[in-house]
Order: sequence, then C-alpha cells, then structure tokens
Amino acid sequence: MKKCIIREQKKFEEKSNALYETLFSCANGYLGIRGCLEEGVPDGWNTMRGMYINGFYDVIPMKQAENLCNFIEKKETMVNVADLQTIRLRVCGEPFDLSAGTILSNRRILNMEEGYTLRDVTWCSPGGKKLQIQIKRMASFEKLTLFTMEYRVTPLNFSGNVQLESMHIADVRNYSNPADPRLAAESLQNLQVISMETGQGRSISVGRTSESGLRMCAACGHHVKITAENQIKEQSVPENSSIRCSLSSDGKTESCFLVQAKVTEKEQLILEKYCVLTDSIRYADVQKAAAEDLQEALLKGLSYYEEAQRQYLARFWNQCEMEIDGDESMNNAVAFNMYQLLQSAAKDSHCSVAAKGLSGEGYEGHYFWDTEMFILPFFILTNPDMARMLLSYRYDTLDKARENAKLLGHRKGALFPWRTITGVECSGYFPSGTAQYHIDSDIAYAVIQYYLTTGDLDFIEEKGAEIVLETARLWMDTGNYAGEYFVINDVTGPDEYTCMVNNNYYTNCGARYNLAWAVRFMKILQETGRDRKLSEKLKVTEEELCRMQEASDRMLLPYDQKLGINPQDDSFLQKPRWELAQTPKENFPLLLHYHPLHLYRYQVCKQADTVLAYFLYETEQSIEVMKRSYQYYEAITTHDSSLSTCVFSIVASRLGMEEKGYSYFGHSAEMDLENTHNNTKDGIHTANMGGCYMAIVNGFAGLRINTEGISIAPFLPPDWNKYRFKLRYRGSLLQVEVRKGRVTVSVLEGKEVKIRIWEHFCRIMQGEKVEYENQSSHI
Amino acid sequence: MKKCIIREQKKFEEKSNALYETLFSCANGYLGIRGCLEEGVPDGWNTMRGMYINGFYDVIPMKQAENLCNFIEKKETMVNVADLQTIRLRVCGEPFDLSAGTILSNRRILNMEEGYTLRDVTWCSPGGKKLQIQIKRMASFEKLTLFTMEYRVTPLNFSGNVQLESMHIADVRNYSNPADPRLAAESLQNLQVISMETGQGRSISVGRTSESGLRMCAACGHHVKITAENQIKEQSVPENSSIRCSLSSDGKTESCFLVQAKVTEKEQLILEKYCVLTDSIRYADVQKAAAEDLQEALLKGLSYYEEAQRQYLARFWNQCEMEIDGDESMNNAVAFNMYQLLQSAAKDSHCSVAAKGLSGEGYEGHYFWDTEMFILPFFILTNPDMARMLLSYRYDTLDKARENAKLLGHRKGALFPWRTITGVECSGYFPSGTAQYHIDSDIAYAVIQYYLTTGDLDFIEEKGAEIVLETARLWMDTGNYAGEYFVINDVTGPDEYTCMVNNNYYTNCGARYNLAWAVRFMKILQETGRDRKLSEKLKVTEEELCRMQEASDRMLLPYDQKLGINPQDDSFLQKPRWELAQTPKENFPLLLHYHPLHLYRYQVCKQADTVLAYFLYETEQSIEVMKRSYQYYEAITTHDSSLSTCVFSIVASRLGMEEKGYSYFGHSAEMDLENTHNNTKDGIHTANMGGCYMAIVNGFAGLRINTEGISIAPFLPPDWNKYRFKLRYRGSLLQVEVRKGRVTVSVLEGKEVKIRIWEHFCRIMQGEKVEYENQSSHI
Repeated sequence: MKKCIIREQKKFEEKSNALYETLFSCANGYLGIRGCLEEGVPDGWNTMRGMYINGFYDVIPMKQAENLCNFIEKKETMVNVADLQTIRLRVCGEPFDLSAGTILSNRRILNMEEGYTLRDVTWCSPGGKKLQIQIKRMASFEKLTLFTMEYRVTPLNFSGNVQLESMHIADVRNYSNPADPRLAAESLQNLQVISMETGQGRSISVGRTSESGLRMCAACGHHVKITAENQIKEQSVPENSSIRCSLSSDGKTESCFLVQAKVTEKEQLILEKYCVLTDSIRYADVQKAAAEDLQEALLKGLSYYEEAQRQYLARFWNQCEMEIDGDESMNNAVAFNMYQLLQSAAKDSHCSVAAKGLSGEGYEGHYFWDTEMFILPFFILTNPDMARMLLSYRYDTLDKARENAKLLGHRKGALFPWRTITGVECSGYFPSGTAQYHIDSDIAYAVIQYYLTTGDLDFIEEKGAEIVLETARLWMDTGNYAGEYFVINDVTGPDEYTCMVNNNYYTNCGARYNLAWAVRFMKILQETGRDRKLSEKLKVTEEELCRMQEASDRMLLPYDQKLGINPQDDSFLQKPRWELAQTPKENFPLLLHYHPLHLYRYQVCKQADTVLAYFLYETEQSIEVMKRSYQYYEAITTHDSSLSTCVFSIVASRLGMEEKGYSYFGHSAEMDLENTHNNTKDGIHTANMGGCYMAIVNGFAGLRINTEGISIAPFLPPDWNKYRFKLRYRGSLLQVEVRKGRVTVSVLEGKEVKIRIWEHFCRIMQGEKVEYENQSSHI
Repeated sequence: MKKCIIREQKKFEEKSNALYETLFSCANGYLGIRGCLEEGVPDGWNTMRGMYINGFYDVIPMKQAENLCNFIEKKETMVNVADLQTIRLRVCGEPFDLSAGTILSNRRILNMEEGYTLRDVTWCSPGGKKLQIQIKRMASFEKLTLFTMEYRVTPLNFSGNVQLESMHIADVRNYSNPADPRLAAESLQNLQVISMETGQGRSISVGRTSESGLRMCAACGHHVKITAENQIKEQSVPENSSIRCSLSSDGKTESCFLVQAKVTEKEQLILEKYCVLTDSIRYADVQKAAAEDLQEALLKGLSYYEEAQRQYLARFWNQCEMEIDGDESMNNAVAFNMYQLLQSAAKDSHCSVAAKGLSGEGYEGHYFWDTEMFILPFFILTNPDMARMLLSYRYDTLDKARENAKLLGHRKGALFPWRTITGVECSGYFPSGTAQYHIDSDIAYAVIQYYLTTGDLDFIEEKGAEIVLETARLWMDTGNYAGEYFVINDVTGPDEYTCMVNNNYYTNCGARYNLAWAVRFMKILQETGRDRKLSEKLKVTEEELCRMQEASDRMLLPYDQKLGINPQDDSFLQKPRWELAQTPKENFPLLLHYHPLHLYRYQVCKQADTVLAYFLYETEQSIEVMKRSYQYYEAITTHDSSLSTCVFSIVASRLGMEEKGYSYFGHSAEMDLENTHNNTKDGIHTANMGGCYMAIVNGFAGLRINTEGISIAPFLPPDWNKYRFKLRYRGSLLQVEVRKGRVTVSVLEGKEVKIRIWEHFCRIMQGEKVEYENQSSHI
C-alpha cells in the first residue's frame, strides 16, 4: 500500500495554497524548500517563499522595551537562503497562471515511499490551449545538498512554442508578520549576495549573512529533454536556450535559464533542475563544494537520485514500520507525521529539529524542548544513531548553556536555552522563555531514555553523564530547602498560561529525576571504571553527589489533600478557574486575546503540564491521584499548544480511558493535515508529530523502558483491526502486533530480549515470537 | 537665616559638573531648565543640556522583544524643547572656557528665598585677562512661562572688547544612555522645528512633536546694560548688536543675538535674557501667547520678576515653615528638598510631579506612585490647593485607567498606569511595571488622606469618590476567595526585587483599605444627600458595596506564625535569604548586576515594602509584629530604591527606634545634595524629598491624621535643639514646636482644632497654644 498524501485543489484560493506550501514542502534534514507554486501566486496573496538550511542562521537585533540586567537583545534566526523554485512557463506566448484560464484538474501529491512531491495540473489557457503540467520535487536523502525539480509540459490540444524561465534568485528576505508573536515581526535583509556567476547552463551564487558572517552557496544546473511517446527525442540543452545573470528591475541579483522549444501534441518538454546548497558551517569552500556536488548531480542524473531515494525510504520505513489496519486515513496521517520527522531532523550534529522543521519560518527555525521530549523518542526507538547525533548537538552547546546559567546568576551548572539555533538563548520574554528551566531536566531525560533504550554507555561516558551532571548542578543552585523539603521557586513549567511559579509539579519531578540520575550515572561509571575523566573535568565529589541525592529524595512534589490531586504549582489552586465553556470561540488561542498577566491569574492551561509529568514520571503518584488530576486539568486545558493533545492521549491510555486516548490521538494525528490549529501555513508542528507516534507506541501499546527493562501493555483502539510497529531495543529489532485482546511480539534482529507483556515476563530469541491474550485490564 | 545651597567647584571636572546640572536646575512646576554651563562643556563630557515643559511629551516606539497580547509598544517621553541657555563669551578675542586659563574662584549658589541660581566665577584667561562672571537664573513663579538669565561680566585687570553670543537653538534632542534602563536608550528627534523668526533683538521658534503632534513655542528677548559703579550707563541694545537666524553647519535651526561692547575696568556688561516657553496643551496659539508673554516680560523687566519671586517664596516658606535648630546642614538639606518639590510640582492639572521633577530626563519625565505616596503628603499638609490639583490630574485620566484595566483583561474598574505622562501606561516590562497594581490603592489612599486632612467633601463628591470606587472595583475583579480569605494573586508590590507574587502584604493592606473606603465614601455621600450623581454614573448598588465590604473584611494579610512577622508575600519566606554582607560593594544596585529572575528567587528587597505598609496601615498589626518584621526586612533591604530609607526612618521613629529613625533620615535628607545614589546627574529624586519631609513630620513628630482626627507624638532627634513646622488641618494653620521632651502646638489661623498630643486630647483656639511634656514613651 502506497504511503501517499493527495490533495485536490478544486478552487484556486489563497488559504489552501498557503497551507499546501507547508504540507508539500520537501526537506531532508539538511535543506528544506517550501512547496510554493513555481510560477508564483497572485499579487497580495500571503506566501512564504522559502528555502532553508538547517542550522544556518543570522543574528538579528531583538531590542527589549526595558533592558534589565542580562536581558537578551539579539537572536538567531533561520535564513531564507535563495529562491531556486521559481520556474515560469509560457505557452504560445500565454503565461501559465492558475488565476487565469480554466483549471481542469489540480492535484498535489506527496509520495512518502518514493520521497517526492508532485503537482499535477491540467489547465486550459485563456486562449484555449490545453496542457498538462507535472512538477516533481525531491530533497535528496542520498545527497543532502541536493534539491531537484522535474518540470514536464505536455500539450494536449496544440503544437507550439513552449518557453520556460528557470530562475535563480539570490536576493531573498525572510517572511514577516508583525501581528503574530510566533513569527518574525520584521523582514530583514539577512543575506547579502556576494557574487553570482553563470555559464554552461549553470548559475552559482554566494551569499553572506549580515551579522553572523556565515556563507552559503546556491548552484543550479539543468537538463532539458523532449520526449515523444516516452522516447527521448533530444537530450542536450536546445540551441535556443540561454542562461544569463542579471540585476532585475528592483535591484535583485538573479539569473534566468531560458528554454524555448517547439513542442507538438504527444510530445513532452521536460526541464530537470538540479539545485545545490552548501554552507560554511559544514564546508570550508562553499562555492567549490557546491560546484562539485552540482557537477556530480548533473552527471548522475535524476533517475539515479530517484532510485537512491526509494532505497533510502525503503530502509527507513522498514526500520520504523507502523501499520494501522482498519483506519486508512489514520494510517496515512501517522505515516505523514513520521515522514515529516525524517524530513525535519538534523543529519549532522551542527543542528537539531526546529519546531517547524524545515517547512516554514514559524518560531524562526528555533530548537526548543520539543526535540528532546516529543521528537527524540521516535528516533531513540527507530534510529538510535540519529538520536545520538541529536543529543550530541546539545552536548556541543554545553559551554553555551554554562554561560547562560551565569547570565541568570547561577554559580554552577548549565542552563540550556529555551529557544536557540547555536545554543545561545534567543528568548525575548523570559517569563515564558528562559524561566522554563524544565528544559534542563528534559534534555537529561532524553539522555537517560536513550541510555535505557540502547545501553550505549560509551555515549554516557563521553557526553551524556556530563549533560546530566551539569543540569543537576543547576537544580542544586536553583532550589533550596524550605523546612524539610527541597523547593524550586520562580520557574515556569510547560504551561505558559501560568508563569514564574514556585514548585511547578512537572519541573520538580524532572529535577528530582535529573538529580537522581546524575548520581546514578556517576555510580555506573565508577563501577565500570569509566568515571576518571569526567570526575576530573567536573571535579565531582562524593559529598556533592550525596547532596544531589538528598535534594532528589526531599524534592517537594505538591499535593492537595482536599482534592487528592497534584496542584500544578504551590498556588495554582488558590486562583479562580477559567470558565472555558463561557469563553467565546473566537477568543482562542487565549494567548492572542488576553494579556499574560490576566492568564496567569487563573486556573487555565495552554497545554498538558502536570499530565505530562504523569507520563514521564509515572511512579511518583498512585493511579487514583493521576486519574483525579487528569480530570481536573482536562477541564481547564485549552490545548492552545500543539503539544497538548498527544500527551492527554498517552496518559488517558495509561489510565484506562481508551476512548479518550483514541479521541485525543485523532486530534494529534491530523493536526497539520487538517490544519486544526489554523497556522500550519507557517510550518508543520514537529513536536506533535512525535507526540502522535508516542500516543500509539507509549499510549495504545503502553511501551515503557525504564530501569526494570522494557514492557508493553497494549490495547486496540476502537475501529481498528490491528496495528503493528517495530522498535529497536538494546540493538535488537522487535516487532509488536496488536489485535483485539491479543499481542504478538517478535524479535526480528539481534540478541534475545527480555520483555514484560502485561503481567507476563518473557524472553524472546531472534526469529521467535510470543503471543499473549489480555485477560485482565492492563492497569 | 538664608536658605542657600553653595558649592565651590575647586577643580573643574566632569562628574561634579553633571551633578550640578541637576542641583542647580531652575524650575517652577511648568518649565524646567538644567543648570548647564552657558558656554558648554569640553567635548566628550557627559552633559544633559535640557529644557522641559511639564506634561509636554512625544510618543516614541518601544518595541517589545516578544510582543504578547496587549503589551505596550509605545511610550510617552518628556521632550527637550529648546536650548536657550547657551551664551558664549569672548574677551578681547579669547573665549571664556573653564578648561583653559585659570579658575580663581568658582561658586554655584541656589538661593531658595529669592528663587534663583547664581554662577559666580573669577577667571583668568590664557592671555592674562582677569574677569568676574556672574550669571543669575530664575524660573519665575509669578509668570510660569518665563525663564530669565542675567549674564554679568566685570573686567578686573583690563579694558577691552567683550562679546556675548546669546543663542536660541531650536533643534534639540533628548539625552540618551543605552546602558542604563532608567534612561532613554535612543536619542530621537522628538521635536521638528516648524519656524524661526528673528527681529528687534528677539527670536521666536515653533516646534511640533513628531508623533504626539503637540506644538510649543520658544521666544527670547534681551536687554543689554553697561553699568559703572552701579550706575547704568547704557540701557538699549548697543548699536553693534545684532540678531540673526541661521542654519548652523550641522543643519540646526538657531539664532544668535550678538553683543559687542568695549568695557572698561570698573564697568560691567550685563545681558538680560528673557526666555518664554508656551505649549499647545495650555495655549491655543502658542506663538501669540509666547510673543505676548515675552513682550510683557521685556516691559516689566527683571527686577519686577525678582521681587515677585521673593514675595512668592516668602509666602511659600511661611506656609510650610520647617526649621531645625541645632543642625544647620540638615536644616538646609530639608529646605532644599521642599524647594525642589515646589519647583517640580504641577501648577495646573495638565500634569503632575515627575520622578525627577523637571530637573532631568531620568525616567523620561514619567509620573509614578511617587506623587501620591511620597510627594502629595507635603502638599496636603502645606498647600491643599496644589494637592487637589494633583489629584484632579489623576481624576482626569480615569477613563484612560479604565481602558488600561480592559487591556489587562478586567471587566470592571480602573487600573492606573505604573508610569505615564497623559495617563496611558508607558511601562515596557510589566512584571515590575503594570503588575504593580498597588498604584490603585496608593492613589485612593491619597484621596482619602486629602479628605481626612482638609474635610473637602466637595472634591470627594465631584472626583474623589469616583476614583476610590473605580479602584475598589479593580480589586474586586482582581482578587478572589480562596477558602475564607479574599486573596490577590500575581501582582507586584513596591519591592521590585520580587515580582508577580500572591498576596503581597502591602498590596493586600492597600486593597483592604481602598475597598473599605469605597463603601465609606458612598455612605458619607448618601448621608449628606450627595450620592445621586455618582451612583447613577457608576451604577453602584448596595449589593456591590456589601461585597466590597466583605472582601475588605476577609482580605488575607499574610502572617507567619513561626517568625511572628508578616511575610512580604505568600512564598517570600520559602526562598533563601540574600547575603548582603557577602555581596561585593560594586554589585549594588543589584538591579544593574543580576538578572531579575535571579533576584526574584531570593529574600532581598530593593526598598521598604511591608515596612511601608506599617506606616500607611499601622493599625493592622501589633507593635511587636511590626518590630520583628522591621528587623527582619531591614537585614535584607538594599535601599537600591531612593524611596526606601525615608520609610525605614518613619517606621523606626514609630517603633521607638529613635536613633535609627534619625540615621535613615540623614540618608534621605542628603541623597541628592551628597549624590549618594550616584545618579543625581539624571535628575533629583522627588519622592525621596517628600519622604524626607514625612520622616520629620510623620516620623519624629509622629503626626497622624485618620478617622479619629489629628494626633502627634513627637520626639527630638539627638543633636537637635528643637524643630518647628507648620501644617494646615481642616483650614486651620497649626504650628508645632518640639524641644527635648516638650512640645508646643499653636493654632495660627482658622478655627479651633481638636488634637491628640501623646495621650492628651486637647482643643486649641486660634491664637492659643498648648504645651506638653513627654513623661512616657510615645508608643
């Protein structure tokens, strides 16, 4: 069964077009290209015409209204590097333009098994020329610097002159929208074009960022073919084709590759465009690297990369197989989400996974806790190498996190930035930014989870333990004893509708875990004789470890005796509850309609906060407390954050509320495909995509990996016949298949696996499988 | 005894010069002129060359780093309106310049009885010409639009050509210092010069503010005299004088009045400069008004205004007499503070009293709670008409406060802005700005105190009760019941080192008082048949008043059983104490050296917070609780705020710690004269000046005016022989004289006064006095 997303755009309209720019974006973790129309959009339409390199940034000013001590006054921003996607078509002198003429059919397709997007348009020009236009795009996983386009024109009722202008526009700006705090407010000239050269049907431009001083190079080359009945008629560049570099009327540096050919009915004109991007973070000589990669790509040709793409994706889907039987649309939605994670995630440790991946400029290409808490679990289970690379990115920024901690007045430890590209804090409003100290324990959690899943002690010795220790130190420097309890004051939990609070339940759970694991990792390293280097580097003493253990043991986890729930923080329950039912629909998301100070004064949650803690730190409370809390918070959570519903789904599943778990999963699975948050045009919601995966694996299947090993406790959602997924645990590849009341687990590769299935402890050898029926409830 | 401030500037240096620009500024509540050197300062010196009109503002952008909902993104700023103080002197071709030649003597004087400043310099030029230069400046209290300068040159060892260039520079900018959050970060062109005309020895320029669209006019005229042995030799403009309007080399619009005269030894050249400022807030035709005022001033001449100034000040000092016998320097310091309050305070209800008065651009000319809590008490007791005008300013901005409340999400009530010129919130960082809701109860407190002192029920009926009711409504909409208590969450108290807390003791006390008085005022108006208009306008119901009374009665005032003190807020005591003794001296003020989030996490106070509540709401706690709290907070208060020491003084006096009261008073009294906060160069600290007055009247003398009437319980500070002050109570003028263990109270004007002196209740008729000896402690 093909993993495909297909959208018919019956009416040509602005809103769906902006959405499709995101949904049909192409990326490979290194570069990303929005799915913009090659010919452009009508004047005045909202369009974000962008092409990005992961981790490639400029630094822009971010003036503070009042600049208090150590406030952040500049930020990194992902740079729109070039417009290589513009190709203009003329047929017998008439420009191809969907707002003119007649659209006979207009489909957009994302093929996730072959790794391309396709526009397939049948159009009749105002002058009556019917033609089919098919444009295939691909960001190559084989060659990360390469993006390809294949533009195919088929006359349907005429023979005549067809002209294509393939543009290379070097001067571009970032998108801006001053009305939305989640987007850049100003459009700055981040990139200065240094040079552009053309020749031999190729163009190559070099740009330099204004403040960060990085360089990038964009190179384009072309093949042109005319085929008749699938026979290639002409392969070389037609004689009347030309490429020229020019300054456009508004002073932009751009080049245009011009193809003019007479095409008859039953023939096709095919333009293959090879686009290469390189940057100075990865390449010493960006121009040389780009020229070489372009040369290689032109030589190998499109079919080579198409085949490589298919093979890469076959491996990918095989590793992370996830099949839902009985709900085709969910099956496709889940595949879409996993595919987007693959498109978004860093393929080297110079970068990470942005909140919007490489699909748009929302949140300015910044990396948040989203990576560790929502996206890494997918990679830890399906691609440990990528997971390790993403954690290495954080390790490489540890010194910057130490600096950040100093800026905040800490004497010890490291505080990871709330939002960043290179590891420097880029959050302009600290109460719901930098004050979210939980990012420290989130990153520590991901290290621990990686270790528990892979058993990779080398990574812990080299990098992981240092992260966990330095974040643990930050908690020691942040918290203090108040009576018998260790308390943490003035931090912000995940829920940004309540900021700067004392003893946020989520934060304290995380700090407690972080501290305990700092001690545990040191013990493990000591026991295996691997502790020397780290102990010396960090000057860890036994006494320090004792203090960490004690703080962990005595951490205050707020509990309200009367309600029998965990308050989100010390004073949450003394505030009035926000009446969500009485809030007009148009006032959501609340953050766009209420001053933060107003929100802070109510019991109202943007997202799962305490509920997320119940998933991550589930042994801290009894099932009864978690159930009561869940119901309590559910009634006051708006899910204005895209990170919320997946967590409510996971925890509902955990607490036996299977229908609720499935319902929240549905919200999560189709968030971008259905544009339920109404801002997918600015980019996909990568964290939710990871969360959607977790809702199945950790939610429905009840997967847990902790110090006691691996366990599952699955159930089958209503309406599904069965679902099946693979995961890698300590080097072995497992397959889990869940049917009604029955689960089959097999070990496809690797050594024997000990696993708990519901209440059954079992060992499975490679090639074996076990099957259990669920006779009792799993909680 | 002359009230005079004299400073010898032995060395000519940048730091003291910047300080003297403030200390010797001239103002009359309408206009203010920094005490800058007429000839300018050496290149590169820090100088704030300003001239201001109270309430005259422009609007400038204040971009937020992240613009959340209803964040403030523009602010009003006091505008530097012109440079009329520049006068350049040349003697036989040599320019007068203190950095060249030899300073033989260099004194600056502020005469507070005659109301002028004087520079008195004896200088020898590099070429050996000795001369005396005396420059007298005056901001006229008689004619508020008028500022005068008298520039007097006396050759001491030569006869020769003396040249004066009197400048009228219309193009000026505001001062800026991007490094200090208390000053403007950017220098903007707030004022556009529209026109400048010259003729008949006069110049007149009109400017318009860039964004607020206000107009102002500056007009200058001159008289020139040469006197010999005090005989006027020549009165008219010398023939070789000229005035011309020009564009200077850097494009500035300016005019220059040029005087050239041959002056012999024993003669003096005198230039009288009459400067008039008008603005479109007060005058429909600013140019006409300025021309008329200038014409009148030139006709009446300097001596007329000098005499009027003397008479005005004689009345002022008579009304607010405050004499300290036995400590001349304190006596002078207190007089200086009172004089600065007079110079700073609005003379009409278009404006108020800025944090720095009209003496500098610190805090951008904004009005804060400083006015009501620290400055108004002085005027309520000594000049009720001015007090009523200042309260009327707030009343006139009530609609804007209602709008502000809406921006913060409130459904009812009015929230006064934390900092403003016209009543619009101008605070860029809300956690230590807008979140200081206590400004509402502070303004209400001032209304109540004005009423208790004057008995002016007309004002309450017309304006006061509406303020108190609308602020009370805000508390009802902000707070909520948590169990049996009414609580107020997420506000910031006066202490900005702890922000966004729950149940700030100061705030809750204020809200409780505010609510109770809303009810009480309505009752008083009902009983006197004056409630109709207000009840109809505000639709006040009995039920609403009941709810207010109940909230007041059940207001939570945090109390810690274990320590027996009032915690500053709910969670203050669970934070670690900041070790002030171990903090390096150069790290003060802390706000310039620590990120706010760090400060918030400690028990450390910028200023008196709970301690201030003990002064304002002293019946809420027992003496023992207040004493313990005082000691507790004293140990963790940095007094980084200029508003702190005066309050610690008042409350120390109240609690019987007389030496401490006196010591804090000393800090307060000489803050600006001794530049103890090291930023007097940016302007005086008006609130502290009012606080210094209170430290005597409410502190040493123990004055209280409340529903039980007026009472005093004075003591004599160590080293003083006696002190005497006057105050007005319910129309009568009282004089209080305190000697060691003895107090004399007399009624100088008005009807009989009932007063409690220590434990004695007595009635004093006009012309009578009573005297008591203090046999017991007054507490």
